[in-house]
Amino acid sequence: MSKLRFTISVSLDGFVAGPDQSVEEPLGRGGEQLHEWAVRLRSWRQAHGLEGGAVEDDDENDNKVMRESIANVGATIMGRNMFGGQPGPWDRTEPWRGWWGKDPPFRHPVFVLTHHARESLGFDNGTSFTFVTDGIESALDRARQAAGYQYVNIGGGADVARQYLGADLIDELELHLVPVLLGGGTRLFDGAGSDLHGLELLRTLTGDGVVHLKLARGLR
Amino acid sequence: MSKLRFTISVSLDGFVAGPDQSVEEPLGRGGEQLHEWAVRLRSWRQAHGLEGGAVEDDDENDNKVMRESIANVGATIMGRNMFGGQPGPWDRTEPWRGWWGKDPPFRHPVFVLTHHARESLGFDNGTSFTFVTDGIESALDRARQAAGYQYVNIGGGADVARQYLGADLIDELELHLVPVLLGGGTRLFDGAGSDLHGLELLRTLTGDGVVHLKLARGLR
Repeated sequence: MSKLRFTISVSLDGFVAGPDQSVEEPLGRGGEQLHEWAVRLRSWRQAHGLEGGAVEDDDENDNKVMRESIANVGATIMGRNMFGGQPGPWDRTEPWRGWWGKDPPFRHPVFVLTHHARESLGFDNGTSFTFVTDGIESALDRARQAAGYQYVNIGGGADVARQYLGADLIDELELHLVPVLLGGGTRLFDGAGSDLHGLELLRTLTGDGVVHLKLARGLR
Repeated sequence: MSKLRFTISVSLDGFVAGPDQSVEEPLGRGGEQLHEWAVRLRSWRQAHGLEGGAVEDDDENDNKVMRESIANVGATIMGRNMFGGQPGPWDRTEPWRGWWGKDPPFRHPVFVLTHHARESLGFDNGTSFTFVTDGIESALDRARQAAGYQYVNIGGGADVARQYLGADLIDELELHLVPVLLGGGTRLFDGAGSDLHGLELLRTLTGDGVVHLKLARGLR
């Protein structure tokens, strides 16, 4: 059965986004620092349809971790806000198709947790968005069917990941710990309680200004 | 000039002590998990006057980090609460001498930040407690004089460390990151703002159920 995985960049003080998130600054103040290690990698840029990437600066461990996180993913689950929140009034003339435009960087089925049923969306590059209204376990069942033996990724947000963690359903959790302080914003573990639900430290890899901590269940 | 260092164990969700701290449970609920990696080390036990230690389970990196944190320390600075808070009524017949009894595990001068002047205390093993009422910079000056070319350690609590961090005075910060959740308690970086004051990641070492992250200033 395919494993459920969540990977996310987090600051030293535990935030996955900075304070004062807005449409202009969706990662909040300072939040872009969490992703600098990733966006300079050629592997990340290729997956997002971008050219270039500072290959000479690519860190071996960062690349290894990024390639792992992109490869062998058969489906993604995300929350409504990650899909794109409510469209602005300028979009109302046609159905809202999410933040990503015509080439969403998934290329596999995506299951969006929502309370509002709507028809699925398909894209030429293999991405589809299916809207799931009957809960996280149903979404996981459907994502696993779509993924076959590949991973199911949780695409965020942190609240969705905490729901799966709390339901004992996360098999792998990889934190990209970035040594900066954000001083406020969205905490990864806020309200997660004091139970890691069987997840234990499996691996630590140090990259260029980031430490990759991989936790997994069932190591013993 | 001697460097100012702070080392502390912290949970994956950013706590240095669990919820509901009390005299009976000074580390709060679950807080003892943060120190399990340390207390089983022979190096830690020797420094605290204890026998034994599960030598066969000693992790090489854990030992390296622990030996570093014990060696070459010439003075310690701590807050009033770390020294021992207020004595209970059973102690009022003689001057309160802190939590540690007759053999405090320092064996060097300790400077206690407080608002209440009192005479210094000396112990046979080389430990002394000097009470400093004129602020953190004065305490650091005196600790540096006492330490010579050795380190000055911040003995805690987190609030004292944050004051020195905010004043640009910490040279090295080592976090022993323990992959557990405490779900509440004392946050290391609460109120620290979004500035690491020049500290950058210098080294990562993975131990037995703990990851040691060393940050230092002036790497570039």
